[in-house]
Amino acid sequence: MVSAEHLSYQARCERMTIVIVGTNRKDANSRTIAAYYQRLLEEEGEPSQILDLIHLPPDFLATALYENNGQNEEFNAFRQVLEENERFVFIVPEYNGSFPGVLKAFIDGLEYPSNLAGKKAALVGVAAGMYGGALAISHLTDVLHYLGMQVLPTKPTLAFIHSHLSNEEITHSAYRQMLVQQVDTLIA
Amino acid sequence: MVSAEHLSYQARCERMTIVIVGTNRKDANSRTIAAYYQRLLEEEGEPSQILDLIHLPPDFLATALYENNGQNEEFNAFRQVLEENERFVFIVPEYNGSFPGVLKAFIDGLEYPSNLAGKKAALVGVAAGMYGGALAISHLTDVLHYLGMQVLPTKPTLAFIHSHLSNEEITHSAYRQMLVQQVDTLIA
Amino acid sequence: MVSAEHLSYQARCERMTIVIVGTNRKDANSRTIAAYYQRLLEEEGEPSQILDLIHLPPDFLATALYENNGQNEEFNAFRQVLEENERFVFIVPEYNGSFPGVLKAFIDGLEYPSNLAGKKAALVGVAAGMYGGALAISHLTDVLHYLGMQVLPTKPTLAFIHSHLSNEEITHSAYRQMLVQQVDTLIA
Amino acid sequence: MVSAEHLSYQARCERMTIVIVGTNRKDANSRTIAAYYQRLLEEEGEPSQILDLIHLPPDFLATALYENNGQNEEFNAFRQVLEENERFVFIVPEYNGSFPGVLKAFIDGLEYPSNLAGKKAALVGVAAGMYGGALAISHLTDVLHYLGMQVLPTKPTLAFIHSHLSNEEITHSAYRQMLVQQVDTLIA
Repeated sequence: MVSAEHLSYQARCERMTIVIVGTNRKDANSRTIAAYYQRLLEEEGEPSQILDLIHLPPDFLATALYENNGQNEEFNAFRQVLEENERFVFIVPEYNGSFPGVLKAFIDGLEYPSNLAGKKAALVGVAAGMYGGALAISHLTDVLHYLGMQVLPTKPTLAFIHSHLSNEEITHSAYRQMLVQQVDTLIA
Repeated sequence: MVSAEHLSYQARCERMTIVIVGTNRKDANSRTIAAYYQRLLEEEGEPSQILDLIHLPPDFLATALYENNGQNEEFNAFRQVLEENERFVFIVPEYNGSFPGVLKAFIDGLEYPSNLAGKKAALVGVAAGMYGGALAISHLTDVLHYLGMQVLPTKPTLAFIHSHLSNEEITHSAYRQMLVQQVDTLIA
Repeated sequence: MVSAEHLSYQARCERMTIVIVGTNRKDANSRTIAAYYQRLLEEEGEPSQILDLIHLPPDFLATALYENNGQNEEFNAFRQVLEENERFVFIVPEYNGSFPGVLKAFIDGLEYPSNLAGKKAALVGVAAGMYGGALAISHLTDVLHYLGMQVLPTKPTLAFIHSHLSNEEITHSAYRQMLVQQVDTLIA
Repeated sequence: MVSAEHLSYQARCERMTIVIVGTNRKDANSRTIAAYYQRLLEEEGEPSQILDLIHLPPDFLATALYENNGQNEEFNAFRQVLEENERFVFIVPEYNGSFPGVLKAFIDGLEYPSNLAGKKAALVGVAAGMYGGALAISHLTDVLHYLGMQVLPTKPTLAFIHSHLSNEEITHSAYRQMLVQQVDTLIA
């Protein structure tokens, strides 16, 4: 049973940056990167919260979209996080030449028309292989622009991620630097 | 309860063209177009079968991907249809600036490495609005190329579909002609 | 003879919005739309200037890129307009499934690394046919993001433009409204 | 003076594979890769010819497109190579997040409607940096599909090319293998 408590979204009174783990895969590096990103935000004094798609209701594809839009309470808890905040980081692996289906399905279940217009999105691509997710990030940009979000132009793509993570730290200084710069732009 | 019998996939002994309804939305025009496309194939003497994503197991996102790849019997029935056939038509609406999340999630649950390499894919975009799904079709091309499929270059995109459907027939002659030409190329 | 005077760039002391005609085609509708856009800016009290790619030096592909970067004085006059200003509107037709080659070639001749980072870009797609240029606009977004520009998420695409222009006015009220809203966001 | 003799297109009586150097940059690695690719074709007994965009007339942007389509004799020599052959390899660097402007401008000057429909295109991305040109290749696929070309799904992207070329040979065995497989598919 997955419930909304997984959001650990305690601080509804203040706005914070939401770091989205853009996959529901159990052993995803994106989850490690999201935690790391959260520490970078903390270093800048910026409160944040993880929104992990692994906690979405397992049947939301059949119960929260289209004619069921807004009808799934658990799913609505996720929607509320998006509604109440202004800044989002998407940590996104590339699966099969694009971003994960679960992330697109999540977006297909959001409120319509979108209440994300004008909000900020920072994108990070993550990949086990050579290419770092350029296509995933490009496709996701098309989608977020459709929703009216401001997508930060600098979109780090972290290739060969297995070689550059150790003890939940990013050991590749160029990767770390790209993320730090993105944080600075996001919270400016 | 959704079961594999929905596939009505009776003719396993012969190869046929599989027409995929690329959404799980109940009242999707894509389903009407798929049935229409099947009639066009029939006129050419080509056997075909509909594969409708609305019949996917409702929780497949949580039970058929990644570490569960290949573990969901109902989902595997869908995979088998792809494994046993060589020609596929994707009828694809554009949601939120790309193709439906359910279709990408379905692809994320296929066998890896892909057994679709070298197989043929014909793409049709469907849209209620003005643009006919050019972005959906472009993103899907990236994905199917990643899987090694041969994507037919002519990819009709049917805008304002509500105005051009009547009694399950396409009334726009240019639309019909584009589809007929695509059929000819596909089964050549 | 094409010379820098075609820029009619008289007001170097003040910043203004630059409206780029994204093609060098003589009878381009994009030129008409650019002039119209300029009038919309004027109505909001925003000074602007047209930068028309038809006035680029005819041989700039051979004299202003790569090892000749920065060596062509006429071309440099165009670069200077980009350097000195902060807000840009790209009026872009779709040719052959993407934006015009002349626009990409122009970008390939800009200063490297880019001095456009952080500057604002508003994109408008124009097309004679049905689709309004969604692919052109998507590809151009990838390019401008690469350069670090902030691309406004709302990117109007004006299909069937021949039917919606009369006496250099846009007669389609929805088109006009989309452009007015884009102007408001751009100069906010 | 650039002339059509640069094409060294001696064998008009027989069909061959055309390897296009997709840039007009002097010191382009794409040119080295094109020569290497030609040797791979030769090993398979497949005749081929290089079509190098560096030999395009320097002012073709102003003299061979739109109302001048078909009017530039030198440019027409390039068009004729495309008209007379059936198989094409595009060796394409990524500049500024897409393929080179000169290549798109060349395509914008081709015969309209396209006589490339049904012909085969093999794409190879080349990059000095980490990403190998995934966006360039994706955009070019959209363009070639628009022209009706059959784009081979396997599109090798060669990142960090400087580290993997020595004496005009590719020293990275995985790169070589990808190219050999592409050749096999192309000439099958």
